[in-house]
Amino acid sequence: MTRVGIAGATGYAGAELVRILSGHPRVELSILTSRQFAGLKFDDVYPAMAGRVNLTCEELVVEQVCDKADIVFLALPHQLPMTLVPKFIKRNVRVVDLSADFRFNDAAVYASAYQAHTAEDLLESAVYGLSEIYFEAIRSASLIGNPGCYPTSALLPLIPLVKAGLLDLDTLIVDSKSGVSGAGRSLSLTSHFCEVNESVKAYKVASHRHNAEMDAILSREAKQAVQLTFVPHLIPMSRGMLTTIYATPGRGVEAEDIRHCLTVAYSDHPFIRICAQGRVPDTLHVKGSNYCDIGIELDKRTHRLILICAIDNLVKGAAGQAVQNMNIMLGIEETAGLIPMPYPL
Amino acid sequence: MTRVGIAGATGYAGAELVRILSGHPRVELSILTSRQFAGLKFDDVYPAMAGRVNLTCEELVVEQVCDKADIVFLALPHQLPMTLVPKFIKRNVRVVDLSADFRFNDAAVYASAYQAHTAEDLLESAVYGLSEIYFEAIRSASLIGNPGCYPTSALLPLIPLVKAGLLDLDTLIVDSKSGVSGAGRSLSLTSHFCEVNESVKAYKVASHRHNAEMDAILSREAKQAVQLTFVPHLIPMSRGMLTTIYATPGRGVEAEDIRHCLTVAYSDHPFIRICAQGRVPDTLHVKGSNYCDIGIELDKRTHRLILICAIDNLVKGAAGQAVQNMNIMLGIEETAGLIPMPYPL
Amino acid sequence: MTRVGIAGATGYAGAELVRILSGHPRVELSILTSRQFAGLKFDDVYPAMAGRVNLTCEELVVEQVCDKADIVFLALPHQLPMTLVPKFIKRNVRVVDLSADFRFNDAAVYASAYQAHTAEDLLESAVYGLSEIYFEAIRSASLIGNPGCYPTSALLPLIPLVKAGLLDLDTLIVDSKSGVSGAGRSLSLTSHFCEVNESVKAYKVASHRHNAEMDAILSREAKQAVQLTFVPHLIPMSRGMLTTIYATPGRGVEAEDIRHCLTVAYSDHPFIRICAQGRVPDTLHVKGSNYCDIGIELDKRTHRLILICAIDNLVKGAAGQAVQNMNIMLGIEETAGLIPMPYPL
Amino acid sequence: MTRVGIAGATGYAGAELVRILSGHPRVELSILTSRQFAGLKFDDVYPAMAGRVNLTCEELVVEQVCDKADIVFLALPHQLPMTLVPKFIKRNVRVVDLSADFRFNDAAVYASAYQAHTAEDLLESAVYGLSEIYFEAIRSASLIGNPGCYPTSALLPLIPLVKAGLLDLDTLIVDSKSGVSGAGRSLSLTSHFCEVNESVKAYKVASHRHNAEMDAILSREAKQAVQLTFVPHLIPMSRGMLTTIYATPGRGVEAEDIRHCLTVAYSDHPFIRICAQGRVPDTLHVKGSNYCDIGIELDKRTHRLILICAIDNLVKGAAGQAVQNMNIMLGIEETAGLIPMPYPL
Repeated sequence: MTRVGIAGATGYAGAELVRILSGHPRVELSILTSRQFAGLKFDDVYPAMAGRVNLTCEELVVEQVCDKADIVFLALPHQLPMTLVPKFIKRNVRVVDLSADFRFNDAAVYASAYQAHTAEDLLESAVYGLSEIYFEAIRSASLIGNPGCYPTSALLPLIPLVKAGLLDLDTLIVDSKSGVSGAGRSLSLTSHFCEVNESVKAYKVASHRHNAEMDAILSREAKQAVQLTFVPHLIPMSRGMLTTIYATPGRGVEAEDIRHCLTVAYSDHPFIRICAQGRVPDTLHVKGSNYCDIGIELDKRTHRLILICAIDNLVKGAAGQAVQNMNIMLGIEETAGLIPMPYPL
Repeated sequence: MTRVGIAGATGYAGAELVRILSGHPRVELSILTSRQFAGLKFDDVYPAMAGRVNLTCEELVVEQVCDKADIVFLALPHQLPMTLVPKFIKRNVRVVDLSADFRFNDAAVYASAYQAHTAEDLLESAVYGLSEIYFEAIRSASLIGNPGCYPTSALLPLIPLVKAGLLDLDTLIVDSKSGVSGAGRSLSLTSHFCEVNESVKAYKVASHRHNAEMDAILSREAKQAVQLTFVPHLIPMSRGMLTTIYATPGRGVEAEDIRHCLTVAYSDHPFIRICAQGRVPDTLHVKGSNYCDIGIELDKRTHRLILICAIDNLVKGAAGQAVQNMNIMLGIEETAGLIPMPYPL
Repeated sequence: MTRVGIAGATGYAGAELVRILSGHPRVELSILTSRQFAGLKFDDVYPAMAGRVNLTCEELVVEQVCDKADIVFLALPHQLPMTLVPKFIKRNVRVVDLSADFRFNDAAVYASAYQAHTAEDLLESAVYGLSEIYFEAIRSASLIGNPGCYPTSALLPLIPLVKAGLLDLDTLIVDSKSGVSGAGRSLSLTSHFCEVNESVKAYKVASHRHNAEMDAILSREAKQAVQLTFVPHLIPMSRGMLTTIYATPGRGVEAEDIRHCLTVAYSDHPFIRICAQGRVPDTLHVKGSNYCDIGIELDKRTHRLILICAIDNLVKGAAGQAVQNMNIMLGIEETAGLIPMPYPL
Repeated sequence: MTRVGIAGATGYAGAELVRILSGHPRVELSILTSRQFAGLKFDDVYPAMAGRVNLTCEELVVEQVCDKADIVFLALPHQLPMTLVPKFIKRNVRVVDLSADFRFNDAAVYASAYQAHTAEDLLESAVYGLSEIYFEAIRSASLIGNPGCYPTSALLPLIPLVKAGLLDLDTLIVDSKSGVSGAGRSLSLTSHFCEVNESVKAYKVASHRHNAEMDAILSREAKQAVQLTFVPHLIPMSRGMLTTIYATPGRGVEAEDIRHCLTVAYSDHPFIRICAQGRVPDTLHVKGSNYCDIGIELDKRTHRLILICAIDNLVKGAAGQAVQNMNIMLGIEETAGLIPMPYPL
């Protein structure tokens, strides 16, 4: 059994890692850390887990994690992982980092969206963990920069089309709708029940950091600078993310070309489901699962392509994809521990 | 006191008319009709209204409505109003029709989106009831085609900019998020609690009838054919609509030009609130009220304009605007009966 | 115009007072205080109010409030009002206190549920503001202890029956279900969206402070010690409270006796609506309004009475009842400013 | 592999059976029937299941089900199963019936709550499938009457205490709060989103059929007639049920006696979790799982016991318990296919 540690286990992404990994057939949860709840049993923080998880939260001490774990998930705020990862790597403990710290190859780009990077030398070997796209690189990686939830939902539909040159790259608009869990467990008026319930609003309009992440990856794949417009919205539900993408196809590109390209690109990838013609994704259909559902529509009047992508922001958008990446790194079945079906309601 | 009738009083738009008009200082509710609940007291259908409304629902008989009302609101499915309106007009009963039947000047355009029109001769005199834009025409109208909820939320931000020539008309994209009440009170799996709760999805992608309504009005104002891309989404909440509009400003047009244009256009209109720089609308801020909040952002990197508009789909998007139109027609204060403030939560 | 001040205007009860009073025909909002937001315009804190309220939040300085207001509402945490009220009273400014500080006549009872009282001498003249029950005393009061939300929902159904001796006082059980706004605007994990959404739970089981309040008032009315069992529950919605009361009627007491007693007791009170036989209250029917709907059922098999009471916790359970009390104190129409009908949805 | 069929697979309980059984390691889904959707692929009805379930819904023909399945789950409206079960039993196909038809041993009691029974001779051998309580009988049963959701949530806490004689049986009151999925997928105004959202209400007050089921089972265990008062409430969430039980303990019975009794009774049962002192159950902690969490509080002032029980109404309250019963019948591990942990949010 591979021994697995989670740093930051009591945030929502961390707890979701615990949920998934505690039922994983090939690994064993060996250590959980939590700054806020160190000393408490994990199931005192999340009573849902009583009877399933019997670990006590510990302070994050790199040496202790290295002693107990072969692979570690970091579910910590950005800026902290870059101080820790070099130590894990030196000890040959593989890392899946869910923060933004290792998502960028270019330290300058990271710096412009976040702050100066203090572990630049690791950026080159870090692999962007968009599982289906970078499968081969993930296989041999020792450090994964796990993608953001918004980028996952936008890049999975876009990358195959961009690589195939099917889109006018100046026309990309990404309008995302996210459940509230994406804002995490830290207290904030923006996650206060009565401020969110019965409310829809945009936030960080054209200024969200995930915009830089999407641009960087798309630019790499397009081999030219791509800048898209991104507006995230907050929706009164706990889990789920729906991303609606607008793009003008290149001259002569038809709806069937788009559909064919995506269908082929993901034919061997069980977690990507291309919706049949006329069907649209619904976050309810992917809730609790690692699925990513993609719908394709062409507005014939304006010849504008509409791609719609639904994921569970905590699963394919965070913990599920992280486990998928671990599976790929370990050379075990990609779906191990991730087979539970989404909830019908 | 002007006597007011409501046909179709037990649907959600009808009930919202009852709610607003029962507290209106200048009119008196005199007759309510309901096919499904004829014979029942209105407050047996909506116990919320007990103690406030003491009318019994009647079958819709045009003569009886004409005898009892000076003005009638039609909250009926489209296709029915066009068979009734000629009779009301002949009897000099003014009509505010909340269906689509009298929103189009051109019967052919109506026919292509709905079905053949059987009261074409009234289309020319019917006034599109977007209150702030067509204020003068509404004043002397005897027949109002009350706007759809989605068009209201898209046209109020767009029309002043289109008239001023500030936008590239080929670039308009409208991404709307609506609460479930917009789907009405008729039973349907798409309004079934467990299918909507914790779910976000698009529907009628680039094929919603309101698209034709928006195009028709914008084309009229732009004095050229305009076609926009429109994608509505369903959100797990009862009331509220947020519309995010993407458009490329014309060459040399800056964010301040946009802001200035909208601020001036609506300076005398108490229900339109232009959000201060950096503020975004939230459906919670307009809930239960006739307000329309508009936010303005420019994505400087892509020079793409983002307009965000929040309304209560049942108030400014339906019953509230209908009452506002009635007020204008009656020559009384535009805000009469509509002053209650939105709920803070 | 009576000038009205609100201390603690930016909490949920305070904001609801602002919402109601800003539309009140007989008073004028003259000063708003807020510790947290002093210096900010009120509508920057609650953008819903933009265009309706044009006051800036101030620090709470008693002298300044007294200069500007004839009557003041205190929407502050308990323990603070008892330090302020004596100063207001000395300046002849009437007070409606929404905290618990002046709900108890007996300082010892207050002390056992809260902490030592520092303004004991005012307790005797303070009137418990359960509007329909203590109407006469409120009329001439200068200090109102406005009831808690749970007590309002339990006492309105119970008091007439207790006074009439129709119930076995040893059998009273109160099971309440409250929306989340009752927990206020202060950040807390128990009001964090993802912890509340899709969740129902009891809290403070048989240990909530409102239990003492209910017992004290019922004991006074029954002229004997009454102790009931009270369990509050938190429900995933913003507004509304449903209280289900179980009690064994006295020997020979029938359902009709109960119904008759309540109907007579509240026949002159427009905000209390006794549901017709077979009808049950629904929080949706009172949402946003000052109504209190009461349903009556008898379980014939066990001869156990079930009373069900629905209120909006922020209106009849807090700000609405406070305004109703102000109206009574001012000798104006009881319903002034409170006529807006509840929302049909 | 045991072959399993589901009749009524497209209702919510049926779909939940599909979700659980499709991931079950020891059985194989072999046939799904659906009157409404016969001929459609199951994942066209529930797109969530795409990629996981590849069966087409069929008409319910007993012979065909018997040919394909060794055990069949009936997720059908009551009254239909009693016409089908005799045929399955004759063909030696074991049955877990989720309707009420085989929950009662006494046809007269069934008849008084439902209608005349047409398969009376099977009632004696049918086993009431409250898994932890009737484990031994279930082991050898060929026909299970799977308990109702409300009875499951009330009987699991009550039965051990009733058998031990710790409660005054005249004092039992059951106040339940259920999510909307309990009302099923059939269209109804009571499940219409806008009628349920932001609403709490009681329904079928002291007249719900599950009352008879609880009384019958408790009477059997108590060896005397027991009648409790039962009031169900509808809560704006999809899944989950919280039941609050009020009871007076017998003379001299203390809180520790209650806690000890329940702890011992369920010590070998992994799905029952007794909350530690001071902890209360939350439906969020059991969401999606087969867990049943029980909290125990004593109101010392009134010496009244408060038991609180949380289950997922679709899992432990329906499909999960049905699968648990199947596991017991098949002699395999009780938890097989049911190990996924509840969601932390």
